Amino acid sequence: MEFTIERGAAQPLYGQIAQEVRRRIRNGALPVGTRLPTVRELAAQLGVTRLTVHSAYEELQSGGWVEATVGRGTFVAQQLNPLESSDLGSELSARGLLNDMIRMAMMPGMRSLAMADAAHEFYPTREFARAVSDVIESGPSIYGYPSSQGDPLLRTVLAEILHERGVRAAPDELLITSGATHGLSLIAQTLARTGDTVLVEGPSYLGALNVFATQGLRLVEVPMDADGMVVDALPALIEQHQPRFIYTVPTFHNPVGVCLSPARRTALVELAARTRVPIVEDDIYGWLALEGTSPPALKRDDHASMVVYVGSFSKILLPGLRIGYVAASPTLIARLCLMRQANDLAGPTLLQRAMALYLQRGRLTTHLRRVLPHYRERRDALLTAMTRHFPSDMRWTEPHGGFCVWVQLPAEVRPTDLYLAGIERGVAFAPGDFFYASAAPAPHMRLSFSTQTPAVLTEAVTVLGELLGTQIARRTFTRRTATDVVPLV
Amino acid sequence: MEFTIERGAAQPLYGQIAQEVRRRIRNGALPVGTRLPTVRELAAQLGVTRLTVHSAYEELQSGGWVEATVGRGTFVAQQLNPLESSDLGSELSARGLLNDMIRMAMMPGMRSLAMADAAHEFYPTREFARAVSDVIESGPSIYGYPSSQGDPLLRTVLAEILHERGVRAAPDELLITSGATHGLSLIAQTLARTGDTVLVEGPSYLGALNVFATQGLRLVEVPMDADGMVVDALPALIEQHQPRFIYTVPTFHNPVGVCLSPARRTALVELAARTRVPIVEDDIYGWLALEGTSPPALKRDDHASMVVYVGSFSKILLPGLRIGYVAASPTLIARLCLMRQANDLAGPTLLQRAMALYLQRGRLTTHLRRVLPHYRERRDALLTAMTRHFPSDMRWTEPHGGFCVWVQLPAEVRPTDLYLAGIERGVAFAPGDFFYASAAPAPHMRLSFSTQTPAVLTEAVTVLGELLGTQIARRTFTRRTATDVVPLV
Repeated sequence: MEFTIERGAAQPLYGQIAQEVRRRIRNGALPVGTRLPTVRELAAQLGVTRLTVHSAYEELQSGGWVEATVGRGTFVAQQLNPLESSDLGSELSARGLLNDMIRMAMMPGMRSLAMADAAHEFYPTREFARAVSDVIESGPSIYGYPSSQGDPLLRTVLAEILHERGVRAAPDELLITSGATHGLSLIAQTLARTGDTVLVEGPSYLGALNVFATQGLRLVEVPMDADGMVVDALPALIEQHQPRFIYTVPTFHNPVGVCLSPARRTALVELAARTRVPIVEDDIYGWLALEGTSPPALKRDDHASMVVYVGSFSKILLPGLRIGYVAASPTLIARLCLMRQANDLAGPTLLQRAMALYLQRGRLTTHLRRVLPHYRERRDALLTAMTRHFPSDMRWTEPHGGFCVWVQLPAEVRPTDLYLAGIERGVAFAPGDFFYASAAPAPHMRLSFSTQTPAVLTEAVTVLGELLGTQIARRTFTRRTATDVVPLV
Repeated sequence: MEFTIERGAAQPLYGQIAQEVRRRIRNGALPVGTRLPTVRELAAQLGVTRLTVHSAYEELQSGGWVEATVGRGTFVAQQLNPLESSDLGSELSARGLLNDMIRMAMMPGMRSLAMADAAHEFYPTREFARAVSDVIESGPSIYGYPSSQGDPLLRTVLAEILHERGVRAAPDELLITSGATHGLSLIAQTLARTGDTVLVEGPSYLGALNVFATQGLRLVEVPMDADGMVVDALPALIEQHQPRFIYTVPTFHNPVGVCLSPARRTALVELAARTRVPIVEDDIYGWLALEGTSPPALKRDDHASMVVYVGSFSKILLPGLRIGYVAASPTLIARLCLMRQANDLAGPTLLQRAMALYLQRGRLTTHLRRVLPHYRERRDALLTAMTRHFPSDMRWTEPHGGFCVWVQLPAEVRPTDLYLAGIERGVAFAPGDFFYASAAPAPHMRLSFSTQTPAVLTEAVTVLGELLGTQIARRTFTRRTATDVVPLV
């Protein structure tokens, strides 16, 4: 190999050698399998130390450009395809588990309590199909490039409907998204950049943790108790971590099932106004009160414009439509629209317009009136069966709305063991560990009652009760003592 | 103010003072408008130098926590709301211009040559509406949480159809996206991270530049000529910039209108295989040959699996459906799906299934057979009118497909001047500067012929010809000389 190296250049000699070898591999001058000169030979040829050549070869080897075999020499390697490598540019979290949960929940015969999802059998398919039919007869305008902010008719109707959650937003203060996940993703990309910190509840909604972690945000957990997020813990966390925003599900929390207490709601909104740390309020279960009425959204009392409100029709109507929304100040909505243009440009008008017609016809109210009693019945069946079949010292939340019950497992039960044993018996749930950004402080499982009939819920709980009994008996050698009881949230 | 400061701590004294003041503003102990002690007073009280207190106050002032008025003192400021600030966490590019273009193109009476878009009057609304009607009668399964990868039926049908572009991808090698923009965004997020470099054509598709820039990628331009991207320029750029990928529109380029030559196609695919720098091929105009047949996609000869192929139905059928696709290896598709789960989870099955039925019924072929002659007629009308009404020394491309003509303006004409003069006369086009990541090397405009009738195209060109004449006459004092003629691309 003929080399030119430049002494006294900014680039060290070993770097120059490595670069030249890379260049020759790239341009084909050194095909795969070519034997490079030995360290001794090249050092002599270039008049450099052996250490210099050795360093160059080491760099080439760690980059996958060459392979060294002891006693045989150094050879140009078959280069890796970056598209096939698992070491891609950006960090993808291991939370592809979500996908497995969806798949498992869809396995034939599985009694799945894993998905906090609307029940298929309650889907308002006929009424929505009618709205779609009406829209597709309205001409070609629904097929042109849509507004990034979303269909104006849907935003106008939605502005009305959100009054019921206490949210007063004009149509230009609304952005229609492709589901709540999309709203969270756009908000996080707009308000934070890689390495920034956000505060999340521990535990929190899995999908949100996935969105934030994938964007390279640092997640710091705020503890939860039976009154929701422990707001008193926030000032110290804010001072220490200078978070970009606080993410919370204050109403019918996923996975815990509780609501933030009225006193804490007031304190949280005041804290945000004072500290100027924005709140991202996820109200996706806000319409699903199973008794009484839902607490109004935090956004209602947001006089300082510090709350970004996120919602969706996925839990109350049809998840497959992928229609969610964000309510925020016009300034922020405009920035979110710009972010969306660099993401997916816009969502489909046809479905947004059909949703607008559906809502305009007052169907959401009648639909909720029809389905809420069924969900209440399912919740009651689940709680009754748990009381009957679970060990008497176990504890869980009793939600007044939403789809989730949060169950603290005996300390001697490992959620993954129980999970796998459950799958074998045709019963699925969501292991509690999924819902923490850091290590789970205690073993939990989330049971969702929304998608199964009372009979199936009872069956599933009977199976889980049996498995719990077996696993507790098997592990008596690690039985918990009074000191490791963690407060149930 | 009572203070505790700690001498000899890691944090300097001025930093401790600033932090303590911030803490008190946050917790309400120092309300807005409170007058802080003077520098002299606080220095004496704490036993520190005036410079220390002065530095603390300066830090607080630059952070917006306090305001100082000469002669009056230092006061706690009204804090800024980060949600209302233009200085948000992430960098948003100024390319909201795209939005203005869309708005302008939609202004009543505007003869817009600004949008490289399918013509509304050719939308296959009836046939697509029929497919939608059939789908909504098929039951509730289309309304459940969809697969992140996209409807399996659509992927199966699409795999067949892509053969026509030379692309052989199995259904599991396809991802359905919310339009091509979404595909580019997911690919960029998966293959690159903030600060990484990508190579793009200069000029290139505005939307892609926006996606990459918003993600904080560094854009390095590869020159173009009449044979497309100058592939010979790549090896040096790759060695210098170590790009994560090369983005190209090899077929009926937007904005230039040319195709990458067969020799360069071969060279580009070989280069990617050798250098292991992936190619992102945007084939969105690939179906729109106005004479003869389209060159097959680069992906056809991609034996080393280095090409990620992106397409969409927005230009050939209906942009409002937001359906695009990516073809790549199963490994990369799986990673893109994970990225999508952290972005918008999935797209709506209803529309994807309707598209599958539409394609399965062979409608795409009949549709293209019907509309391509109209687009050809429009292109011819535009080129004829330009020859007649534009100054005789101007040059432009004569595209064999796609929707765009790239016009080099006389050096004395500023595209923005012409643009504003055009808008005043009811004629819109896309200024060439939009399509460069860096400064435009010469003044250009992009004229799109797809959305206007031959009569309107002729009118618009007549107006632009008049405006060009006026602007050239007005600026004779800066007439170009032979030396500043830049090669037309």
